[in-house]
Amino acid sequence: MSDFITKRAEDINQWYNDLVIKGELADYSSVRGCMVIKPYGYALWENMRDALDKMIKDTGHVNAYFPLFVPKSLFEAEEKNAEGFAKECAVVTHYRLKNDPNNKGKLIVDPEAKLEEELVVRPTSEAVIWNTYKTWVQSYRDLPLLINQWANVVRWEMRTKLFLRTAEFLWQEGHTAHATQAEAIEETKKMLGVYADFTENWLAIPVYQGVKSESERFAGADDTYTIEGLMQDGKALQCGTSHFLGQNFAKAFDVKYQTTEGKDEYVWATSWGVSTRLIGALLMTHSDDKGIVMPPKVAPHQVVFVPFLHEKKPEQNQILIDKCNEFVTQFKAKGIRCKIDTDLMKRPGFKFAEHEMKGIPVRIVFGPRDLEENVAEVARRDNLSKESISQDKLVDHVENLLTEIQANIYNRAKEYRNTNTRECTDYEDFKSKIAEGGFVITHWDGTAETEEKIKEETKATIRCIPYDYEQTAGKCIYSGKETKHRVLFARAH
Amino acid sequence: MSDFITKRAEDINQWYNDLVIKGELADYSSVRGCMVIKPYGYALWENMRDALDKMIKDTGHVNAYFPLFVPKSLFEAEEKNAEGFAKECAVVTHYRLKNDPNNKGKLIVDPEAKLEEELVVRPTSEAVIWNTYKTWVQSYRDLPLLINQWANVVRWEMRTKLFLRTAEFLWQEGHTAHATQAEAIEETKKMLGVYADFTENWLAIPVYQGVKSESERFAGADDTYTIEGLMQDGKALQCGTSHFLGQNFAKAFDVKYQTTEGKDEYVWATSWGVSTRLIGALLMTHSDDKGIVMPPKVAPHQVVFVPFLHEKKPEQNQILIDKCNEFVTQFKAKGIRCKIDTDLMKRPGFKFAEHEMKGIPVRIVFGPRDLEENVAEVARRDNLSKESISQDKLVDHVENLLTEIQANIYNRAKEYRNTNTRECTDYEDFKSKIAEGGFVITHWDGTAETEEKIKEETKATIRCIPYDYEQTAGKCIYSGKETKHRVLFARAH
Repeated sequence: MSDFITKRAEDINQWYNDLVIKGELADYSSVRGCMVIKPYGYALWENMRDALDKMIKDTGHVNAYFPLFVPKSLFEAEEKNAEGFAKECAVVTHYRLKNDPNNKGKLIVDPEAKLEEELVVRPTSEAVIWNTYKTWVQSYRDLPLLINQWANVVRWEMRTKLFLRTAEFLWQEGHTAHATQAEAIEETKKMLGVYADFTENWLAIPVYQGVKSESERFAGADDTYTIEGLMQDGKALQCGTSHFLGQNFAKAFDVKYQTTEGKDEYVWATSWGVSTRLIGALLMTHSDDKGIVMPPKVAPHQVVFVPFLHEKKPEQNQILIDKCNEFVTQFKAKGIRCKIDTDLMKRPGFKFAEHEMKGIPVRIVFGPRDLEENVAEVARRDNLSKESISQDKLVDHVENLLTEIQANIYNRAKEYRNTNTRECTDYEDFKSKIAEGGFVITHWDGTAETEEKIKEETKATIRCIPYDYEQTAGKCIYSGKETKHRVLFARAH
Repeated sequence: MSDFITKRAEDINQWYNDLVIKGELADYSSVRGCMVIKPYGYALWENMRDALDKMIKDTGHVNAYFPLFVPKSLFEAEEKNAEGFAKECAVVTHYRLKNDPNNKGKLIVDPEAKLEEELVVRPTSEAVIWNTYKTWVQSYRDLPLLINQWANVVRWEMRTKLFLRTAEFLWQEGHTAHATQAEAIEETKKMLGVYADFTENWLAIPVYQGVKSESERFAGADDTYTIEGLMQDGKALQCGTSHFLGQNFAKAFDVKYQTTEGKDEYVWATSWGVSTRLIGALLMTHSDDKGIVMPPKVAPHQVVFVPFLHEKKPEQNQILIDKCNEFVTQFKAKGIRCKIDTDLMKRPGFKFAEHEMKGIPVRIVFGPRDLEENVAEVARRDNLSKESISQDKLVDHVENLLTEIQANIYNRAKEYRNTNTRECTDYEDFKSKIAEGGFVITHWDGTAETEEKIKEETKATIRCIPYDYEQTAGKCIYSGKETKHRVLFARAH
């Protein structure tokens, strides 16, 4: 089974695709750039969504749902935002098909059903939401508006990659409105913190938090905050962003509120989102040549039981399965998600490889003799180690093990990330470090020209001006100018 | 506050719209036929979704996600299905906008970005799903496939009504594949049973279960099973449908499996769905002239505390609010969802009317003297009765009350439904009964011609051939022909 997964050293892009397809997380579809999220992948997404949804609600936000379509006139209202997304949006122009008179059984677009105004399938919902907020906000008493939505969005990407870049994807997008600039900036940073917390503590992906350079900002934002992870191919991956939108959307949609003093003021805005892309980040961070390594906290199955079944001994099999079920009941009471593999056709070795490929954190194996001896073999997916455990201690042992695995894969990823984050003061050295992969922390003169030149020459982009590094003075690695910006460069997905 | 709600006797359609808009469940949007589901409405939907999702999973189904778009060539593959939906679908024809050269700041569809093949925004997902199942099903070991998806769909309705009929709506759609006809029919009926269970036991809406006549079937189905509720305006409402699709989609998409004997056979299919329309059903079933009546099991807030606060006595207020919080902690431990109204600006009477309009099942009120006397006033939304309860017994009392309210509103709706389900053997009598509203149970000769005539003359349609009524022989109410079909007629939403 493990032979079916391409090894990282051979072809890391093929390895990634194998994880997704052979791990049964997603499948290609008949629609260009769109994928099918299969049950195993969707169960993972549900666990991620439920955990993050709780964090979003715990910070005072509520969910709502806004229309899929954005009328063109609204879409173009905030100019920078429109410019940023116009080149990659799906446009609905008609509302009816009719029978093709020249081709029986076929349909054509009915030219008489042309829309007066075209509808854009939302690439993001600022326009449609701010047009609604206009009617919801009158006075300071209506603020803040702290709303989130879980939805599908469409961006017509030319080069797609399963989970990482697809034409349609699932995400959540928060859209908040505030009375003051300070409050909106605080919200922007708070939600970046929630994303960092979620990504590190649930997905076990260490991230750098920071601010984007102007050229990497969200179209329509005054500032974009980001969390950036490092993938095993040495490339950075933007895991989530939180935008301070200033008054840009309030002005574009004329959203004002009456202050306590009775004055009319434009409101201040934020928006923030993470998507199914995080599944790609999770896969690329933890997996190995045997397949996926699921972080226990979000794994669809945290434990798989593989009893040694014998095709010709149904009674003995039943005893083993009953024992599994006993344990499952105990695990369930602790909120641990289990699966029992009762397949009689596949050999144990094949099953082991299959569960390893799918990344189930813990495997528990026993046969009739183990039952007599009151033991079980417990195997960890993260480091592939095995040990024999007394069945009396099994439940507590595995509960602790899940916590340990979660911590271990986070620490492992963090060590890799830290080792591959290097300081640099010389441009030739910079170029070779960038080519080797990982983050390079260095001084940049703050100009878009230098940023563009470096990108042209090295394919590296500024991922962020990070929180974690002191902004000491120094010389720009490219122009040699004195500057106080220290930034993280990397090639990125 | 209650004056803001139009009374049913005055204008029942306006009453319904008032419930939705003034109850803050949804709002009109800038997109024709699409609504915004506001936080209060979405919280209701989340409760409904979570309860139903559990029932769907408990019956062995798993969730997945399929693309929003259906390429035209797939859409037209199952001819009846295509014909049924072609007239009302949103069509994506282009993938880019560009700057309007004649109008600065405006965008136009880029004619160079025309899609080779148009994409239909899914009105339902059979086509895109069955095209995928083709690659997932090879042998009997791959069956049954029991998959559900929560998604948004679009049907270009000409006359829309909030929740009941919108261009975009949220729903779940189950799509299953089976080895045998019998198993698929069993699944179709099982899921109708799940819907009836959910609708009756969670939403407190009594429904008739039955089979649709041929002309009312889902496009592409061999049989459509339905649950039908009766609204307070005397009209029936289709609350959910479950379709036996025969081998129609298997043949259209060439989905075959190898049997245990090694033969190739087409698989058998079902699909089933309920949508945000159920929110409309819930509103129209239980609400009154004071506003919404929420079934406790799905109410966003089950209990609202209204402590008697005094603008100038902050210390006394704090004691009251602390007491509320004590109770909330106890209620929360029992899984009861609470809200405390601490607004200092609004008068109690206004608050009461507001919470009644929003349908919160139980209101708990106390002031400083009640605290001394260790009592609280508990008001029921369903029958508007109030009683004074010892604070020591409050939690248990309210817990029981919520169960009682759930049962009471169901029984009340069932009595209304039963009273307004009348037998009939004479066509003149039938016409007058139909005009009065409600269901009429009568004999029908089984022909589409008779069905069509009755519809033309009375606006009544066959809602279903119900499970609940014995199919005894009799004479068709219209043609006088001998028949064994007894069917439910009604005017419907």
